[in-house]
Amino acid sequence: MKAVRLHEYDKRPVVEEVPEPRIGGPLDVLVEIGGAGLCRTDLHIVEGQWEEKSGVRLPYTIGHENAGWVREIGSAVSNVAVGDPVILHPLATCGLCRACRAGDDVHCSNSTFPGIDSDGGMAELLLTNARSVVTLDPALRPADVAALADAGLTAYHAVRKAIPLLYPGTKVVVIGAGGLGHIGVQCLVALTSSEIIVVDRSPEALELAAGYGAAHPVLADGSHVEAVAELTGGEGAHVVLDFVGEKGAERDAVAMLRRAGSYFVIGYGGSLDIPTIDIISSEINVIGNLVGSYNDLAELMSLAASGKVSLHTTTYPLDAVNGAMDDLDNGRLTGRGILVP
Amino acid sequence: MKAVRLHEYDKRPVVEEVPEPRIGGPLDVLVEIGGAGLCRTDLHIVEGQWEEKSGVRLPYTIGHENAGWVREIGSAVSNVAVGDPVILHPLATCGLCRACRAGDDVHCSNSTFPGIDSDGGMAELLLTNARSVVTLDPALRPADVAALADAGLTAYHAVRKAIPLLYPGTKVVVIGAGGLGHIGVQCLVALTSSEIIVVDRSPEALELAAGYGAAHPVLADGSHVEAVAELTGGEGAHVVLDFVGEKGAERDAVAMLRRAGSYFVIGYGGSLDIPTIDIISSEINVIGNLVGSYNDLAELMSLAASGKVSLHTTTYPLDAVNGAMDDLDNGRLTGRGILVP
Amino acid sequence: MKAVRLHEYDKRPVVEEVPEPRIGGPLDVLVEIGGAGLCRTDLHIVEGQWEEKSGVRLPYTIGHENAGWVREIGSAVSNVAVGDPVILHPLATCGLCRACRAGDDVHCSNSTFPGIDSDGGMAELLLTNARSVVTLDPALRPADVAALADAGLTAYHAVRKAIPLLYPGTKVVVIGAGGLGHIGVQCLVALTSSEIIVVDRSPEALELAAGYGAAHPVLADGSHVEAVAELTGGEGAHVVLDFVGEKGAERDAVAMLRRAGSYFVIGYGGSLDIPTIDIISSEINVIGNLVGSYNDLAELMSLAASGKVSLHTTTYPLDAVNGAMDDLDNGRLTGRGILVP
Amino acid sequence: MKAVRLHEYDKRPVVEEVPEPRIGGPLDVLVEIGGAGLCRTDLHIVEGQWEEKSGVRLPYTIGHENAGWVREIGSAVSNVAVGDPVILHPLATCGLCRACRAGDDVHCSNSTFPGIDSDGGMAELLLTNARSVVTLDPALRPADVAALADAGLTAYHAVRKAIPLLYPGTKVVVIGAGGLGHIGVQCLVALTSSEIIVVDRSPEALELAAGYGAAHPVLADGSHVEAVAELTGGEGAHVVLDFVGEKGAERDAVAMLRRAGSYFVIGYGGSLDIPTIDIISSEINVIGNLVGSYNDLAELMSLAASGKVSLHTTTYPLDAVNGAMDDLDNGRLTGRGILVP
Repeated sequence: MKAVRLHEYDKRPVVEEVPEPRIGGPLDVLVEIGGAGLCRTDLHIVEGQWEEKSGVRLPYTIGHENAGWVREIGSAVSNVAVGDPVILHPLATCGLCRACRAGDDVHCSNSTFPGIDSDGGMAELLLTNARSVVTLDPALRPADVAALADAGLTAYHAVRKAIPLLYPGTKVVVIGAGGLGHIGVQCLVALTSSEIIVVDRSPEALELAAGYGAAHPVLADGSHVEAVAELTGGEGAHVVLDFVGEKGAERDAVAMLRRAGSYFVIGYGGSLDIPTIDIISSEINVIGNLVGSYNDLAELMSLAASGKVSLHTTTYPLDAVNGAMDDLDNGRLTGRGILVP
Repeated sequence: MKAVRLHEYDKRPVVEEVPEPRIGGPLDVLVEIGGAGLCRTDLHIVEGQWEEKSGVRLPYTIGHENAGWVREIGSAVSNVAVGDPVILHPLATCGLCRACRAGDDVHCSNSTFPGIDSDGGMAELLLTNARSVVTLDPALRPADVAALADAGLTAYHAVRKAIPLLYPGTKVVVIGAGGLGHIGVQCLVALTSSEIIVVDRSPEALELAAGYGAAHPVLADGSHVEAVAELTGGEGAHVVLDFVGEKGAERDAVAMLRRAGSYFVIGYGGSLDIPTIDIISSEINVIGNLVGSYNDLAELMSLAASGKVSLHTTTYPLDAVNGAMDDLDNGRLTGRGILVP
Repeated sequence: MKAVRLHEYDKRPVVEEVPEPRIGGPLDVLVEIGGAGLCRTDLHIVEGQWEEKSGVRLPYTIGHENAGWVREIGSAVSNVAVGDPVILHPLATCGLCRACRAGDDVHCSNSTFPGIDSDGGMAELLLTNARSVVTLDPALRPADVAALADAGLTAYHAVRKAIPLLYPGTKVVVIGAGGLGHIGVQCLVALTSSEIIVVDRSPEALELAAGYGAAHPVLADGSHVEAVAELTGGEGAHVVLDFVGEKGAERDAVAMLRRAGSYFVIGYGGSLDIPTIDIISSEINVIGNLVGSYNDLAELMSLAASGKVSLHTTTYPLDAVNGAMDDLDNGRLTGRGILVP
Repeated sequence: MKAVRLHEYDKRPVVEEVPEPRIGGPLDVLVEIGGAGLCRTDLHIVEGQWEEKSGVRLPYTIGHENAGWVREIGSAVSNVAVGDPVILHPLATCGLCRACRAGDDVHCSNSTFPGIDSDGGMAELLLTNARSVVTLDPALRPADVAALADAGLTAYHAVRKAIPLLYPGTKVVVIGAGGLGHIGVQCLVALTSSEIIVVDRSPEALELAAGYGAAHPVLADGSHVEAVAELTGGEGAHVVLDFVGEKGAERDAVAMLRRAGSYFVIGYGGSLDIPTIDIISSEINVIGNLVGSYNDLAELMSLAASGKVSLHTTTYPLDAVNGAMDDLDNGRLTGRGILVP
């Protein structure tokens, strides 16, 4: 089969023929890929930024946002059948550790991450296990939702955790209305009646967010913390969802909080620097967020099936992976790039 | 190996030689039994009460409260090693359905129940899967804790669900201080500071409960609802844990609740009959409880290891199973009967 | 001022002149009524059904769903100002007991219920206290929202409690799409992405509910339990909100639940009769619901202000109270009747 | 009456005669002081550190940890009676704002803080309101529990918020076993079965904590982060309660967390500096904590009444306030200093 293989760091991957993976164990699932999302992380993998962290041996197949159809299943697989359309949770988890048993798949003590530390989905076939496959509603095409597997899941997970804080009458700030943030806005609209304030440097991103139901677009032009203060009657927001996490967003986020408010960190790159007296005197919380669980992904697919969350995509054939990477690198890619075998 | 096998309903099981079970799949775990609890349900199985419900084919091996040591593991088992002392969650679950993934093992859509619908643990060896085995602290002997696998787990599960309601200053009623109830009292003492009122027909059971830390023993002599009213300043209890669920307990339980109180149904046999106006005018809740999750069992073993929950047992050799059953049937069995191969 | 006064049970109230109430204490609030909802309970009061329960002395002014404008405030009132449009929480609570302090106003141990046990809002003025007044958004007219004070609040409260159970992909049944139920449907749409199944005997009520966003209207024609089973893939609903609570709805509701499902009792009149084994073997819950808290009402007003919850009303002048009562009694009243002084 | 009055910053307060305060409003409560805790904050007040923040006008009476007996009540007070022994929540709150109504007294938008911004309890009498008085169990003497009003309440509040995270088998680190920390240890023992690791620089404090039930005393000698790693099997603690919040504790606390762990900030003075990637990659939380609610205080008094939380105190007559302050300042004060009029 064809696969996008990385042979050497700092050199672009090549599309080449490799042997088809085969079902080995009773929980194995072989998936015919319908679409694999192209993500900035893929560029970083090529640059070698993940070399040490993943410990993967080259060459290998990249692609960690995958969806398709079940081609073959192991003898003990009971949750999907051959032919089912599926999206893949980014981790293939053990199902045995406490985290897996408590629904915290991401903290599984014994998982693999296809496309990062093992063969991924930019290929005709991907071998994974039954713990990772979420059946899709017939209304959803794998190529349309593949990119929700990671980026969308991360946004959904954070919003879901914030729901109990976002009763009617509350105000929530979304910092960064890009790839993840605009999914976050859609999830907030679907799951809460909180008033949404969106902060971004791009007027286009703000317009998009407003179209999805954000009440207050705020341009990140240096006066945005003040603008949020004004929009919240001087009290600050109940929740800030920060999809940026760097370049000052992490400082602004704290400044935008009201007493007893919660700052959800989703983006990263910067550093949180805050006196402990400021944490206690206003009793604020800082909540980390990391991808999401299998059940989160199933829920997100339910939102997608009902049209409440959607994604703008541009598809490329597998052979065009390097063109797609160029487009992504040069800001020419609108929406999310999807490689279709 | 030796096993306690049921060949015909309404006839006592026989101890006979059967082939040893063998590891077949990668998640299989073969357990050398250290102790198997004898439970009233085993008597009911023999009487044929479970024939239709379980659909099991005779002959088969009974025993559904099992603990022992890992003899052999399948290739994909990562949570236990050969030689580990273990207790077995009563269900062998799939790990793939939403319930399993959300920590609700008991609602697994694809489980087996060894000792009920497949070969159980009154034998030298039991074949189960990795989803069911909880590693024991070295301080715990399998034969001492085996009976916590089902009865203890059920009591723990209910108490754990009640914790958020049982802040200091609250009052909780335990109806029935027998096999499950006296574990419930120990769990309440370990996990809350709620004031415990215990209601039972047996002065001995009340005395035992008081020894475990129950503040107020109340004899179920017909004046017990009134006694609870008095002990709660006429307001009723915040929570009633009913380990009886029949013979009027289910009516008394509701009568003992305060406004916005919660009635946890654990025992069964009777029937709840309550006007809807009584449910809404005092805004009470009725909470069903069924066994517990794998994580619940692991937590309970942690309590057992620290000495906070213990069980009085009488051990019998496997060959003496029918003597043990006689003792149980005739009320001659003190504490829990444990069959040791 | 004019007021609708009940002088004798089983005789219609009269509209007469009474002295204006006056601010006495520092937390008193005098409200100029903009609208008072007419409710079936008012008919029951006239019939004497509340005589014993309320203990009220005749004559007195009825009307327990009230909204208007603040005319005057006591010296310690800090949450509203003269001229503010307000809706009144049905209870005037103490703010001192544990329930009040925990946000459970309805279980206040020291409250009054204007219109039931003291002078109500079918009058030009109503004297209440600062604990009961919720400031309205300028976009809302008191007469339009008055009936949300009790009926709407009850529906909102139940839905709010159910939110954690209603993640995307779940199914919720609403039994009864009348006065409370159609508010319940609007709240579900605003606050969850659960798939809504509505069951009612009236095709018109079903059509209305579908217009508000209910996915599946089901006619209560005897085959409705079966219909719900089919719509839920044979598994039953995660949550049933029962706004009827009598005439078999309370039995149907339990039959419609899936394993670990929750039955929210809101309507009343019938009786719940369920074997305890059915409660534990499927681990279901029965959740009582009673009106709602002040904060609930404030949240509901936020939904109303953003147009997510609305109410169909027919207004009558205060003098026409008996005509309005006739209309209500004879089924000629469309939507909710509102008396406007 | 006699009162400890501050006339000038940087000068010690004087004990002098002042007019007795009088009941003015219907919710006023006049309390005869049985004991007022002396706290390091009192030293800071004298030094003028609170001048700007409190905005208080000199002279005024200090003392913000107060307990005593009700001398007189306003006409609308329903929660205490004359003669009742009471402890005072540190804030006198409005009972009208959303925070008060949701049980978050500390975030009341309209409160006073006797002893900080108005006359406090180092006097024979203190005037407060009904929202602040918690009735004491007859077994408790006001002078014995007064210091729980603030310090104890803060520790209890943090522990209570952590309970859902501290199921059996978890590990919790307490940094700082001093005034607040040793109450925290007692609360953990009373309310959870989590294994407690205590970190402190003082061997005496560690010994005290061990006596209260902490399993693992760890000397803060530079190797303590490593020691915690070892005690948690290299995984870190589920929860860290940091009663220090400065001098490196805030850095150590984060280093001691396991994946998905939570850091409760209680002490302050230092600064949290943490890369956002560290927050998200391990999905940790930072939870602020500020004093506690009225209901928290009532619950803590319930623990005190049952002997589960106690405090070591040294009493001084009111006239000896400056001696007591000297003792506190010079480390000669064992336990908590209590001024008794």
